[in-house]
Amino acid sequence: VACVGTGVIGAGWVAHFLARGLDVAAWDPAPDFAARLHRLVDAAWPALDRLGLAPGASIDRLTVCPTLVEAVTDADFVQESAPEVLGLKLELLAELGGATSPDVVVASSTSGFAMTEMQRACATPGRLVVGHPFNPPYLIPLVEVVGGEQTLPWAVEWAAQFYTATGKRVLSMDHEVPGFVANRLQEAVWREALHMVAAGDATVEQIDLAMTEGPGPRWAFMGPCLTFHLAGGEGGMAHMLDHFGPSLAAPWTRLSAPELTPALRQQMVAGTAAEAGDRTFAELIVERDRNLTAVLRALAAVRRGALDADGAGGSESTEGGAGT
Amino acid sequence: VACVGTGVIGAGWVAHFLARGLDVAAWDPAPDFAARLHRLVDAAWPALDRLGLAPGASIDRLTVCPTLVEAVTDADFVQESAPEVLGLKLELLAELGGATSPDVVVASSTSGFAMTEMQRACATPGRLVVGHPFNPPYLIPLVEVVGGEQTLPWAVEWAAQFYTATGKRVLSMDHEVPGFVANRLQEAVWREALHMVAAGDATVEQIDLAMTEGPGPRWAFMGPCLTFHLAGGEGGMAHMLDHFGPSLAAPWTRLSAPELTPALRQQMVAGTAAEAGDRTFAELIVERDRNLTAVLRALAAVRRGALDADGAGGSESTEGGAGT
Repeated sequence: VACVGTGVIGAGWVAHFLARGLDVAAWDPAPDFAARLHRLVDAAWPALDRLGLAPGASIDRLTVCPTLVEAVTDADFVQESAPEVLGLKLELLAELGGATSPDVVVASSTSGFAMTEMQRACATPGRLVVGHPFNPPYLIPLVEVVGGEQTLPWAVEWAAQFYTATGKRVLSMDHEVPGFVANRLQEAVWREALHMVAAGDATVEQIDLAMTEGPGPRWAFMGPCLTFHLAGGEGGMAHMLDHFGPSLAAPWTRLSAPELTPALRQQMVAGTAAEAGDRTFAELIVERDRNLTAVLRALAAVRRGALDADGAGGSESTEGGAGT
Repeated sequence: VACVGTGVIGAGWVAHFLARGLDVAAWDPAPDFAARLHRLVDAAWPALDRLGLAPGASIDRLTVCPTLVEAVTDADFVQESAPEVLGLKLELLAELGGATSPDVVVASSTSGFAMTEMQRACATPGRLVVGHPFNPPYLIPLVEVVGGEQTLPWAVEWAAQFYTATGKRVLSMDHEVPGFVANRLQEAVWREALHMVAAGDATVEQIDLAMTEGPGPRWAFMGPCLTFHLAGGEGGMAHMLDHFGPSLAAPWTRLSAPELTPALRQQMVAGTAAEAGDRTFAELIVERDRNLTAVLRALAAVRRGALDADGAGGSESTEGGAGT
């Protein structure tokens, strides 16, 4: 794997791929990037060790390269994590197009640009995809994968399979959405928080407390839709929407809700039913409580300094992907 | 403790107070409420047992009462969890005002009404507060406590201390905010999710996956403000706002951001600085990674069926409050 750009996100990718037992070549235009990259990887390693390293994983398998070309020449996959400047991304992806074989997938960590915008200057845009991680990339499982208009379907599929093989959870999108899905959720919370502080509704500390002691521990394992499915009791999402639908008009956030049309209602009901699968309401409650107590106990263990008390019984070894 | 109204929220409160070793008297107007309440408490008990019961805690300390008056006569604290119907709440709080001593704090679980609206019909409104939990009340730590215009300061203070003594994390507000703080954050996410489904941006399952594999595990222990403080690197919140401020104009959620005035910038910077305290950037990163790996390992342990692998070393015994 070649990692191009080794700031916080790029270095996080380096740590992730190394922990999965891959060889990583890295390059960054900053003159002192090697020392900084090693510091960041060293800082990430104890956490990766706690989660379980792949067989053969080692920081020694990191090669720091003096030029972009040297870093990517032998790579089977390239992860680009340059700063969020469109002109820079355009140039870099064009250069990567010339320096790698057209059958090598090049993924961009961009959090803000659509691949359609970024791939215009590349002579071989078919294998360019977005592979957008969440910070820190070496711990948060999510990677959102999506192609641009010129991206070929095989590249999206290849990237999704590769990331999955390295232990990531992939959200594969068939079309571009501004800001990506997880960012949209995060950004809605952030903007509501800014509004609350600006309006004097709550302080920074109260907002953070409300999250970590409220919805946060639940969202660690159950998303907003399944959460509201359970809030509907035995009647599930359908009951919830029919019963609490009117509250969508209430000023409980600055964000106006969409109209709850019969079509939207049906999409929410069918979607949560598919997600719940054959799990009954009672089974979902038991599952929620097991996960919630596990999270609360693990965090309590960290608070009292029992670092290794959270996952007794050995480390979680993610299946390593094929080496590069 | 008297619990008035024993639906999902009220029964959750009953389970919480019982687990903390308190005597609980319960009443609900539904004719068959006793059997349903026992089922709900029985279902909650294994989770409470895993978290650690207070000395002397027992389901046998639940008394089911045939009338409201019998339930509250000897109570030192009343938790009201009636359905969200304003007229009903008004009447019930007025009745509770007549059935309890004026020095007994009566807290409402309301998620939607302001106490100022609900306390109007009560002859002794000074001890009426909102004590708004998050579902399930027996596991999620947060309780938002706030009074109405007629509430006396001692009652808010007493409720906050009492909840804290029973192991809750209290967000004590000095003024009423529509929807409460945690609900505002949750509702912003929910409405953005509805918009995404309505617009075809993402499916229910993709949204839930984006949460649980993305920001969710981090929000279990670090709120949105401190998260973005870290996103600013060594420069913290100030750098983050100065660097990513322009992205507030980007359509990354349907919610428009407030203007980032110098005053708002200063509030965010000072607020996160206060929250971070004397923890350095490097220390916060270590803390984040410890908590994140603990959460991920605990959830992995639940997935592989190792229920008791998440908090080895004994249960977390919360300090019990004084009995009632």
